[in-house]
Amino acid sequence: MDINAVNALPYEDFVNIFGNVVEKCPIITAAVWSRRPFASLPALEAAINEFIDALPESGKEGILRCHPDLAGRDLQRGTLTRESREEQARAGLDELDSAEASRMAWLNEDYKERFGFPFVICARMNDKANILRQLSERCRNERAVERARGIEEVKKICHLRLQGLVIADAPNKL
Amino acid sequence: MDINAVNALPYEDFVNIFGNVVEKCPIITAAVWSRRPFASLPALEAAINEFIDALPESGKEGILRCHPDLAGRDLQRGTLTRESREEQARAGLDELDSAEASRMAWLNEDYKERFGFPFVICARMNDKANILRQLSERCRNERAVERARGIEEVKKICHLRLQGLVIADAPNKL
Repeated sequence: MDINAVNALPYEDFVNIFGNVVEKCPIITAAVWSRRPFASLPALEAAINEFIDALPESGKEGILRCHPDLAGRDLQRGTLTRESREEQARAGLDELDSAEASRMAWLNEDYKERFGFPFVICARMNDKANILRQLSERCRNERAVERARGIEEVKKICHLRLQGLVIADAPNKL
Repeated sequence: MDINAVNALPYEDFVNIFGNVVEKCPIITAAVWSRRPFASLPALEAAINEFIDALPESGKEGILRCHPDLAGRDLQRGTLTRESREEQARAGLDELDSAEASRMAWLNEDYKERFGFPFVICARMNDKANILRQLSERCRNERAVERARGIEEVKKICHLRLQGLVIADAPNKL
């Protein structure tokens, strides 16, 4: 799908295809449709990032709160979105041994208790050992630092999801 | 559930319960959780409305684009959210005769083509005849007028969904 095809999509198709590039926040995709035409895939991604950056801090926390725990209840119950399920599986989070699973659960609860939003990290750029280490370390940060860090990770996840949906085969193609 | 119980909810429970008071926009509910404690149900509703009002115009259009057509594809396919399904059924939109269904489909397409977002109306405050009449009339408005009007309707829908989730049995109770 090249960028001209993306730009020609009615909003319903655009939201159906790209609506979960930011987890459970189709409003963001639906909003940036107003910014067509996009010159390129990076231009679409930049529009999404600008929309996120312009939100009040509560809105950024809202984005984080729409994310599932890693190796949490939604994974166990099978209620993850397709994208999250694939990303968590790729990082090995569906195959934790019982000690790892307990540690992850405990750290997730500690993080949420401390910050009021979940630990968000781009699972596809990390393995389970790295995720556990960062979760443990990031619990010690300030709240504002973690909010900003979580949003950085949201943008990395969005970047990879966008790339998975369109093939960037030339500078002016998606 | 009184307001103290609502204020005591962890964000995950809060978003699970109230996440669809604005259709497919759990980010809004998740964002206003940061504004606890709420003095009352109207205070919670006011926080949601303030968040919506503070969005850029593209964000308001994004909210509208997260709404399904009335008597549209999602109703036919059974892919409406529970809330939308009940609201559309209550307005009689699941029992249109073929002439009404054709007219609704044609007007919905015309509206979306013209404005780039769907016709949004609080179905529970209208019956199918009234909805068809307003859809026909509102097609003639200016885009900015319709965007604002759609958001007014979003707020009415949110008001009724909130009331359905909590019983307002006293000034200080939810």
